Amino acid sequence: MTSTDFHVFDTTLRDGAQREGVSYSVADKLAVARLLDEIGVGFIEGGWPGALPKDTEFFARARTELKLRHAQLVAFGATRKAGVRVEDDGQVRALLDAGTPVVCLVAKSDVRHVRDALRTTLEENLAMVADTVAFFVAHGRRVFLDCEHFFDGYAADPDYGVRVLETAFAAGAEVGVLCDTNGGMLPMGVGRVVADVRARTSGRLGIHCQDDTGCAVANTLAAVEAGVTHVQGTANGYGERAGNADTFALIGNLVTKMGLPVVPAECLRELQRVSHAIAELANIAPDEHQPFVGASAFAHKAGLHASAIKVSPELYNHLDPAVVGNDMRILVTEMAGRASVELKGRELGVDLTGHDDAIARVVDQVKVLEADGWSFEAADASFELLLRSQLPDAPPPLFELESYKTSVEHWGNGVVVSEATVKVHLLNPDGSRERVISTGEGNGPVNALDNALRQALIGRYPELAGVSLADYKVRILGWKGGTSATTRVLIDTTDGVGEWTTVGVHDNVVEASWHALVDALTYAVLHRPTQAG
Amino acid sequence: MTSTDFHVFDTTLRDGAQREGVSYSVADKLAVARLLDEIGVGFIEGGWPGALPKDTEFFARARTELKLRHAQLVAFGATRKAGVRVEDDGQVRALLDAGTPVVCLVAKSDVRHVRDALRTTLEENLAMVADTVAFFVAHGRRVFLDCEHFFDGYAADPDYGVRVLETAFAAGAEVGVLCDTNGGMLPMGVGRVVADVRARTSGRLGIHCQDDTGCAVANTLAAVEAGVTHVQGTANGYGERAGNADTFALIGNLVTKMGLPVVPAECLRELQRVSHAIAELANIAPDEHQPFVGASAFAHKAGLHASAIKVSPELYNHLDPAVVGNDMRILVTEMAGRASVELKGRELGVDLTGHDDAIARVVDQVKVLEADGWSFEAADASFELLLRSQLPDAPPPLFELESYKTSVEHWGNGVVVSEATVKVHLLNPDGSRERVISTGEGNGPVNALDNALRQALIGRYPELAGVSLADYKVRILGWKGGTSATTRVLIDTTDGVGEWTTVGVHDNVVEASWHALVDALTYAVLHRPTQAG
Repeated sequence: MTSTDFHVFDTTLRDGAQREGVSYSVADKLAVARLLDEIGVGFIEGGWPGALPKDTEFFARARTELKLRHAQLVAFGATRKAGVRVEDDGQVRALLDAGTPVVCLVAKSDVRHVRDALRTTLEENLAMVADTVAFFVAHGRRVFLDCEHFFDGYAADPDYGVRVLETAFAAGAEVGVLCDTNGGMLPMGVGRVVADVRARTSGRLGIHCQDDTGCAVANTLAAVEAGVTHVQGTANGYGERAGNADTFALIGNLVTKMGLPVVPAECLRELQRVSHAIAELANIAPDEHQPFVGASAFAHKAGLHASAIKVSPELYNHLDPAVVGNDMRILVTEMAGRASVELKGRELGVDLTGHDDAIARVVDQVKVLEADGWSFEAADASFELLLRSQLPDAPPPLFELESYKTSVEHWGNGVVVSEATVKVHLLNPDGSRERVISTGEGNGPVNALDNALRQALIGRYPELAGVSLADYKVRILGWKGGTSATTRVLIDTTDGVGEWTTVGVHDNVVEASWHALVDALTYAVLHRPTQAG
Repeated sequence: MTSTDFHVFDTTLRDGAQREGVSYSVADKLAVARLLDEIGVGFIEGGWPGALPKDTEFFARARTELKLRHAQLVAFGATRKAGVRVEDDGQVRALLDAGTPVVCLVAKSDVRHVRDALRTTLEENLAMVADTVAFFVAHGRRVFLDCEHFFDGYAADPDYGVRVLETAFAAGAEVGVLCDTNGGMLPMGVGRVVADVRARTSGRLGIHCQDDTGCAVANTLAAVEAGVTHVQGTANGYGERAGNADTFALIGNLVTKMGLPVVPAECLRELQRVSHAIAELANIAPDEHQPFVGASAFAHKAGLHASAIKVSPELYNHLDPAVVGNDMRILVTEMAGRASVELKGRELGVDLTGHDDAIARVVDQVKVLEADGWSFEAADASFELLLRSQLPDAPPPLFELESYKTSVEHWGNGVVVSEATVKVHLLNPDGSRERVISTGEGNGPVNALDNALRQALIGRYPELAGVSLADYKVRILGWKGGTSATTRVLIDTTDGVGEWTTVGVHDNVVEASWHALVDALTYAVLHRPTQAG
């Protein structure tokens, strides 16, 4: 199957950019386009030149800076305005000037939208479609037509939707895309409409679904089963309201569940990496529970079944995670035994062969710690440190704590201040110790402690400069009437490339945070290249 | 349609609790169950008694503390162990002791899992199903049977899956639930298998879908179209790996798209509120893009179409957002705000008739506060105080704050201590003021503040003696690289009879906690009978 037989059309950079809070720079857009090309989509819709200045610039830079291996670049625009000659329409001109091999035109196909939003006649709308499609075909472009609000329109007046499609095909459009713009469809309805439309038209049909019923992926697949050979999606389903059909889930399902090789075979294993990289560019935390590509998509609370999962993972995964570049994760829970510690060690790249005694000690420690409220399920970095601490080449601690003090004051004038002082001993390579006292401020007792501790350590560990807290979660466990509570703190830390999670548990929330903080910095020193080195 | 005709079965508290990082306290579980009851589901699966000590305690407390209007409570457990008499199986006994009207039993229905995971014979597995179902029926329980890995098993050996179902029905099971445990199905396949199974069995069928293909909701709906009348979901789709079918999307689609009134009509508009409140209890940030209930689910980047959207919103929304208790975000009308404040006031027993000006002020204040990160969805007590503060008989504040200071020290000997001092002015009935300085210790900076403040107030308000904190939750909002975070704190407080929740928001977690703490004590004084009186 080639990209001629089946179109995977990604619109992350156009429709997906409608998501609230997303704002790509032109450099971001070029980076997203390159990433999308790596997963082998056939078409990348880059934006709306003429309407959005940043998109005009994107297409100008793309001509020299973007070398795509698999995809053709697509520019989006509307049909000409009512009552205007197509040659005289400024936005049509801007779309042509974008210089892409493909243009995707949006047209109204719902009679109510023609009348109430476009405020023109049904005949003029058809003429707008015919003129604009013909114009771009005459200029050597491949033309796809997005039929906006197609499904709602079809329910109101099916004949008009078909006339829009026929008009476009007659003028040379290659694909007529049925858009569920309001996202209210279910798969059964999509399948019925697509089958009906196919019986009434002869051109190639596409599908574009929004996720307002939670069925965008399923709706798209139902359309494919009914004969559509062009699917539109966005990376991670980003888009307006509930979002769009997720390109990664579409590809995963089409290839692995429906047996349609819609992207080159070697691209499939790039899905997970590309999904996370685009999330970074969009500045949105990756959804850990996203199908196929989420960090938890193949995570199992092993418990009693660890040995069964180890022997027959195919009985517990709907797919070999490696196929989409993902991993199976075993969550270390209180029911953990040797098998899950071994599996987890392998996953973290810690070689445990020949260290049965260390494994046994870790199993024992995890049991004791989890009974006290520790949870390593979401704190791989702390678990790795625990594991390594039991091996012969255990990394030394960064420092020894003498004492710390942290305070918050609400002054008479309403000002709130936090301040912390730490006293630590750094261990020199020659075995001698250096006492360091350091004070930091912050926007809370833990933030102040974090700042004081970093200041104490940064001379010795300059690599900590690029490390910062990304999230902080507090959970009270087994609260008994306000006194004997245990507090669990999870800290996410990032160095701009990776992110790791550490855990701390104590009756005192500050002491629990301190444990998680120290683990976070220790892990950073263990894994980050020394900037000075 | 009644809950007899169609079962909406929620398993947030059992299967949904498998989600990584989720850990409910027993009080949380009771609160989640109450919330689920408010949306009118027919069945609430509360946990696995005997396997998890917290679940055993939940069912024990539920017997006296949980009054459900719509739902029946369900306890989950496995069929008896291989080679053991059902009467002698400890977990079967624990399940019976849970005392619920309904039990949901999980059974293997995939021959490979019977052999490789259960390590028993196909015949013994059938005997385990028959014995265990019959045991609970004999003890007056309604019995549902979850057929684990049903779809994978059906592909491998369809006859065995049908035999498991027939065995359960013959022994008295009311529903045989087809589980897509690995979540690898698509709607078309689900529809075909359900139709096939229906043709081969006569009992009632249910469906339980995981979201590994991004199709859990659609798969469930496809099963309903194929004749299933029992659907299982979890709040917000929480669950292992990619999660489960989202109960809210299921209800939204079944009622508004498929025309099946599966919950009482008045419950539908509670979906949004309940969804957000459960997210708070699970300590998971609500998904703003969640279908039906997300804050952005009906948000429009209006652009050129603003006026068209305003005039004809039905052309741009797949559903009237008010139907599910949600709002269209570009039109944040004052009417919508006023109406919900009035409704809420009625619910809280605050008479607002004749106080239109107060309502308007509350609507304005809530808008400003929510923009700053406050959330009253899960903090009724703080909302009630806000409401009352705008009425003519507003309760006076308990005190005026001069200053506070709280600190945590980790000493050289490893001891961790927290201490706080508050300086407050109590207002005497004659208008004079009394300055009180009080110091308290605690197991953290907030607990120490709480103790210091109570000590300052207890002479004046002896009713505070019986009041204690029950839970404390922290959420970081809009974290930007570790410095400019805003923190939201929720505090649950109890007097041994009732429980109430208050909220505070500030850059500093201690100051945010202080706000929630002061509200918690103010609410207590407002509602508790004076012990001295």
